[in-house]
Amino acid sequence: MRVLILGGDGYLGWPTAMHLSKKGYDVAIIDNYFRRNACRELNREPLLPALNLHERVAEWQRVSGKKIEVAIGDITHYPFLKSCFSGVAFTGNNDKAKYPDAVIHYAEQPSGPYSMMDYEKSSFTITNNLMSTLNLIHAIKEYKPECHIIKLGTMGVYGTPNIDIEEGYIEIEKGGRKHTCLFPKSPGSLYHLTKVQDGDMLYFYCKTWGIKVTDLNQGPVYGMFTDETQNNENLATIFNYDDIFGTVLNRFIVQAVCGYPLTVYGKGGQVRGYLNIKDTLQCVELTLRTPASEGEYRVLNQFTETFTVNDLAKKVQDSGRRLGLDVKIKAIANPRVEAEDHYYNPKHTGLMELGLQANLLSGDVLDEMIGFVKKYKSSVNTNCIKPQVKWN
Amino acid sequence: MRVLILGGDGYLGWPTAMHLSKKGYDVAIIDNYFRRNACRELNREPLLPALNLHERVAEWQRVSGKKIEVAIGDITHYPFLKSCFSGVAFTGNNDKAKYPDAVIHYAEQPSGPYSMMDYEKSSFTITNNLMSTLNLIHAIKEYKPECHIIKLGTMGVYGTPNIDIEEGYIEIEKGGRKHTCLFPKSPGSLYHLTKVQDGDMLYFYCKTWGIKVTDLNQGPVYGMFTDETQNNENLATIFNYDDIFGTVLNRFIVQAVCGYPLTVYGKGGQVRGYLNIKDTLQCVELTLRTPASEGEYRVLNQFTETFTVNDLAKKVQDSGRRLGLDVKIKAIANPRVEAEDHYYNPKHTGLMELGLQANLLSGDVLDEMIGFVKKYKSSVNTNCIKPQVKWN
Repeated sequence: MRVLILGGDGYLGWPTAMHLSKKGYDVAIIDNYFRRNACRELNREPLLPALNLHERVAEWQRVSGKKIEVAIGDITHYPFLKSCFSGVAFTGNNDKAKYPDAVIHYAEQPSGPYSMMDYEKSSFTITNNLMSTLNLIHAIKEYKPECHIIKLGTMGVYGTPNIDIEEGYIEIEKGGRKHTCLFPKSPGSLYHLTKVQDGDMLYFYCKTWGIKVTDLNQGPVYGMFTDETQNNENLATIFNYDDIFGTVLNRFIVQAVCGYPLTVYGKGGQVRGYLNIKDTLQCVELTLRTPASEGEYRVLNQFTETFTVNDLAKKVQDSGRRLGLDVKIKAIANPRVEAEDHYYNPKHTGLMELGLQANLLSGDVLDEMIGFVKKYKSSVNTNCIKPQVKWN
Repeated sequence: MRVLILGGDGYLGWPTAMHLSKKGYDVAIIDNYFRRNACRELNREPLLPALNLHERVAEWQRVSGKKIEVAIGDITHYPFLKSCFSGVAFTGNNDKAKYPDAVIHYAEQPSGPYSMMDYEKSSFTITNNLMSTLNLIHAIKEYKPECHIIKLGTMGVYGTPNIDIEEGYIEIEKGGRKHTCLFPKSPGSLYHLTKVQDGDMLYFYCKTWGIKVTDLNQGPVYGMFTDETQNNENLATIFNYDDIFGTVLNRFIVQAVCGYPLTVYGKGGQVRGYLNIKDTLQCVELTLRTPASEGEYRVLNQFTETFTVNDLAKKVQDSGRRLGLDVKIKAIANPRVEAEDHYYNPKHTGLMELGLQANLLSGDVLDEMIGFVKKYKSSVNTNCIKPQVKWN
């Protein structure tokens, strides 16, 4: 099975590529190095340096014997994306055997704070995230209508509604009548908004063109270890711990190691659904193996457990203390506009029904992360730990 | 009160500009001639030739004594839009007196069929409609946060749900809990999708930056006469009757005059809310006079009565017969993907509460339209009457 991974150089894309390659999928990666470039420009370099993508796949081939193809370019430029669909970008030839059976779309600008920084970054976020998705839809229609799109969404599209969050759809009863529709959204940043907009776009084209789509509404991911990255730092994933690209638990771990108080935004009562990076890989593979049907816009909520920010801070503090670190927690003014104390009950049975075996957030997992980060403590840039982007 | 009209050269924009100018508003028009250019490129010229915008405002000044300023350019180019906000585009100087108190945003690509024609037109629709709105939001934050945005939306964002359509928001009860949110959307074309997306964007920035927005979800508009256009063909509005830019009733009128069977798509049971072009002007002015509050995303459903497509065809047939025309009705294969027989009960009390006096679709209104179009019968291009764009 031929799988294109858009954004395959990123925090999740690269581990996904190796994971699927190991399982025997014919994997090709497309990336424009946006994330690496943005990290350099904003002086928010990842914890470890990473090989470039060509070097990474060479190293992967050395240790696994498996080949992953690479094309560097920007999929918002439609002719480039077409060349990836046709195979021209990889072999110079239009080759039907290279037309993808599935595309995993990680190629969106993934940061809320980045999208709220300034005009340039907000316009980039809109253009990049929507044009990449529109181009993907058109390429599928043109080359391979039966190709399955797996798009990474975010639980953040739902906001924090006062009713249970369903997986994608809700049946509304009103005035004695019933209507089933997409679950209402309330995104908390421009980035999250684009994930509502791309989902609505995919849903429209499912109904109109009969394309097959799975939207994985993922919660914040934590961790850096997968079976493929674990024992070879040349294969490690990009790990950000800063205020722009670092997810909250990863950020807390680095703060704990550096003796920097854990930065809880506001009251810390914000609840979200989290998952281990290993489970992202599992979820994507399970989804690949059981594709959406023709015309189906399938939505799955991708997380394994919910915590408040205070819960996470406490867990990191406990783990740090076990390992001899003096971890402080400090509530700071919330740079975001969001509820800090709210109802939150999202469903997430779909992926478990597909067979997800959750890797939960145990003390061992936290201790292992802290142990790993300790080795790189001297590389940490503590200037980028405090939030510098305000929502308004 | 200073009012910028984005897209002020169009079918609704130009009559709105004259109407507000006459009422004493300080009006400036911004337009990039997209509509005129697209009509030429697609060989779908309007029924009457129109003066260019500089000639139009000169003619308006001659008959009314009132001055309307003009800037020709593309508001998806942010520096240009900023020059319109600062006054530089009009006077060469940054002048706070020129910062707008309100902006009426008609500058989106307005056609469903256009958005479904091909890749280029779909990507244009996304980019134009979303970047124009994003730029407008940023310009307001930069120049005049208290400026009121009046954005023209469409009733088409709602689709045809099996429950009553509220004005913008709905309260959902589920599992004993209540939640109020934006009314669920189900747009029927990529164009309509962009109106969902821009609405979601405006709603987000209302909550986050406290901007003031009214979204007018308008039904299909018909007619060509307003007080300002009625007696001077040099001031007439652009009137399209084709399959791409012509709204359904305007198209039927021209078909009736030319002896071309009225093209009902599919079963013709599609219900929509319609309004006379005069009422668009009323609604916009009423909205201007009672702006949204700080941080408010106000949604008003803008139509005066609902009809099925079959109802409209029958009304045009009756009017034609009264005027001695042999009008036939012909059901043709529906080029769109849409329900042809459905529940439809949209609310529209908000604008009536603001004082809207509806101009309903009477026999006199139809007869007057047919009488006018008859004068231009020889200009009609019947090649562009039949639908040529298929949704899939």
